[in-house]
Amino acid sequence: MHDEGEAEDEGRASIPASSNGLSRRGFLASVGGAAVGAGAFAAGLKLASSDAPVVGGSYRNATESFYGSGPQGGIVTSAQSNTYFASLDVSTEKRRDLEDLLRSWSDAAADLAVGRLVSPAPFGARSAEPDSMEVIGLGSARLTVTFGLGPGIFEVDGVDRFGLRARRPAALVDLPTFPFDELIAQKTGGDLTIQACADDPQVAFHAVRELLRMAEGVASIRWTQVGFNETPASTGTPRNLQGFKDGTINPAGAQLEEFVWAGAESPRWMRGGTYLVVRRIHIAIEDWDTRSVSEQEQVIGRHKVSGAPLGESAEFDALDLDATDSDGNPLIAVNAHVRLASPKENRGQMILRRGYSYNDGVSAAVGTNPPAYDAGLLFFSYQRDPRKGFIPIFQTLAQNDALSQFTVHTGSLIVAVPPAALGPGHYVGESLFS
Amino acid sequence: MHDEGEAEDEGRASIPASSNGLSRRGFLASVGGAAVGAGAFAAGLKLASSDAPVVGGSYRNATESFYGSGPQGGIVTSAQSNTYFASLDVSTEKRRDLEDLLRSWSDAAADLAVGRLVSPAPFGARSAEPDSMEVIGLGSARLTVTFGLGPGIFEVDGVDRFGLRARRPAALVDLPTFPFDELIAQKTGGDLTIQACADDPQVAFHAVRELLRMAEGVASIRWTQVGFNETPASTGTPRNLQGFKDGTINPAGAQLEEFVWAGAESPRWMRGGTYLVVRRIHIAIEDWDTRSVSEQEQVIGRHKVSGAPLGESAEFDALDLDATDSDGNPLIAVNAHVRLASPKENRGQMILRRGYSYNDGVSAAVGTNPPAYDAGLLFFSYQRDPRKGFIPIFQTLAQNDALSQFTVHTGSLIVAVPPAALGPGHYVGESLFS
Repeated sequence: MHDEGEAEDEGRASIPASSNGLSRRGFLASVGGAAVGAGAFAAGLKLASSDAPVVGGSYRNATESFYGSGPQGGIVTSAQSNTYFASLDVSTEKRRDLEDLLRSWSDAAADLAVGRLVSPAPFGARSAEPDSMEVIGLGSARLTVTFGLGPGIFEVDGVDRFGLRARRPAALVDLPTFPFDELIAQKTGGDLTIQACADDPQVAFHAVRELLRMAEGVASIRWTQVGFNETPASTGTPRNLQGFKDGTINPAGAQLEEFVWAGAESPRWMRGGTYLVVRRIHIAIEDWDTRSVSEQEQVIGRHKVSGAPLGESAEFDALDLDATDSDGNPLIAVNAHVRLASPKENRGQMILRRGYSYNDGVSAAVGTNPPAYDAGLLFFSYQRDPRKGFIPIFQTLAQNDALSQFTVHTGSLIVAVPPAALGPGHYVGESLFS
Repeated sequence: MHDEGEAEDEGRASIPASSNGLSRRGFLASVGGAAVGAGAFAAGLKLASSDAPVVGGSYRNATESFYGSGPQGGIVTSAQSNTYFASLDVSTEKRRDLEDLLRSWSDAAADLAVGRLVSPAPFGARSAEPDSMEVIGLGSARLTVTFGLGPGIFEVDGVDRFGLRARRPAALVDLPTFPFDELIAQKTGGDLTIQACADDPQVAFHAVRELLRMAEGVASIRWTQVGFNETPASTGTPRNLQGFKDGTINPAGAQLEEFVWAGAESPRWMRGGTYLVVRRIHIAIEDWDTRSVSEQEQVIGRHKVSGAPLGESAEFDALDLDATDSDGNPLIAVNAHVRLASPKENRGQMILRRGYSYNDGVSAAVGTNPPAYDAGLLFFSYQRDPRKGFIPIFQTLAQNDALSQFTVHTGSLIVAVPPAALGPGHYVGESLFS
């Protein structure tokens, strides 16, 4: 993480000057009319040495690197306070369009990550449009943009639409139907995904907005979901809307290699990447709030305030599933969430969870009369192979987890998340096409 | 604004110990089970000298005062980065229930504003429930809670349901139908409103959640809306999703007395309060983004980057509506937004605007195929009299404003916002009932 909004790729132009009929200087001259000059700079717009505009800001100029030799950002990156997730349907029939889009996306994401404005060049007839500019003055806010490729990139209804079927990873399965799912079509599936995370909601919105503009003629929005987390300076494991710490046990260190990053079993273009399963999980907040803390703790298997396993005193105390009370009953119930989700109960498997809360107001669709909260958990899980990770774990949970009586999965998606682009001139997913 | 989460009302109990059959100590003992004690405090929960739990936090312990001799917080309070707005329908037929709810709400809001947990005592048969606790560790985050009373408190279909009809302020009119409105029932109207603003979305969510729980049996959710603004440390006028600074001309100083705070023309219980008109304004982002910056600037009447009036160089340069170019044409178009919204074009009237952006994903309801952004502006306007403020100003704008071609008003509401509660033992709206 750098402290300044200046990039490691200073020499790279963020706005292609010749390919779209609008030079960067022409673009800048059009920005703000008479205000360009001292006024524009006072307003927080400045030029990097590459001439690309860089958004001003305060301490929010902290950046996360877009490029790298490992996984994409936004997976093990310390969770930013806001996410904006978008799923797109691909409309083009040309493989070249898809390649060009992914290339343009990576170029733009690298600029956005260091707080630069971009100039979307849609694939239609129009020339590049200027950035929408709602982020001027906001800084880069630790923006990460994480791209994913869904099953539809490889095959749709048996059709090998882009000649990529042979490169589909075995781990990128179509998700099975889970018991008690109530999936909403408008929150499920998609061919391409953008996960933008930032410490400012407007910065995350802006990133997705500009990337979607670039996709015109190639892909269009299918669904999006906003999520929030704690404020950036919060410390410790964040609490979800059930009031419990969420994410205490998460793979780290060598466990990441074992359980999260795709290895030699995946095709070469995916190695070092991961597979993302997204679930939009409605929480019956009204019902949950009628339960005593003690009852809630029995459901979860942890103490609410401390996050400690039942019977223990600190959050990171070992989860002892064999502990019993004086009557010989298990301290952590047989249907407690932490028991059924634990590696011990899942053949040693772990998934990397990255949770955000969502609040979409109230809805008759998920509620009754009066309206119920349309709120819950936007659950991102990353794993080396969903056939060993999310799928079997959730098969168990959906059937037996005491928590399931308070939750309904309303959205679902699986994508392959390739490793990061190596550097300027490279793009996420590049080796899929070569 | 204080820097610490400790309150000026230390001596006041936040959880009524005797009225609901659950003592505060009993409540605390139930929190976290065995973890209560050193573990609970380490986890960020601590007790004020009043024994009421206070949520720990970092610099986010900054507070805004709930009590005061002037208007409620959240109106001229420097805009927090998040808002969560809730509108409720009153279901009780007893005036006493309504009074009790407003009293309980003020007591709880005062506690929430200093980062305390609360223990909602619903009006039904159940005893008080513990706080939902998702804010432990988050601090008070400058939370403000602003209560409003809609027309339905005074009269519904000609029925004086609570014997308050005679006290209805003349300024609390039923809003007229405006040209081109496309109001959604689920985002319009309501008898009671809660506007929670905070520098953390989870803190704002929690406040509304706990207050709604208290309303059980008296009022229920009608609709809610989440909004976001810039991060708390941002300086200057924030930008809306159209990329323009929004709120440059806003009443201040003596203008607040003249245009915002209710005076002697309002009933006594409203003096020093204000009237809030809320509009949920969809922005056709896809269309807006196809327009050149120059065209956008013509629509607004200001430069995009600097915020200066067209032809000027700085945001706060005077808005000269008579300025012309070398051909004698007005620099600011006759249908430009800033012209038609200006005091000069509105008999000198001003309204206090407090804008948040919203992003509810994508929706077929407001879009076409493919789905369109369900995003835009959550517009709070405060005024001394909506018959002189929002209503005539927007009548003009809806018909003629160049900006209207990019916006659709989908939600609407008017409420009376009484002055703040004077201090502990008092509550917002108290003098309406005495």
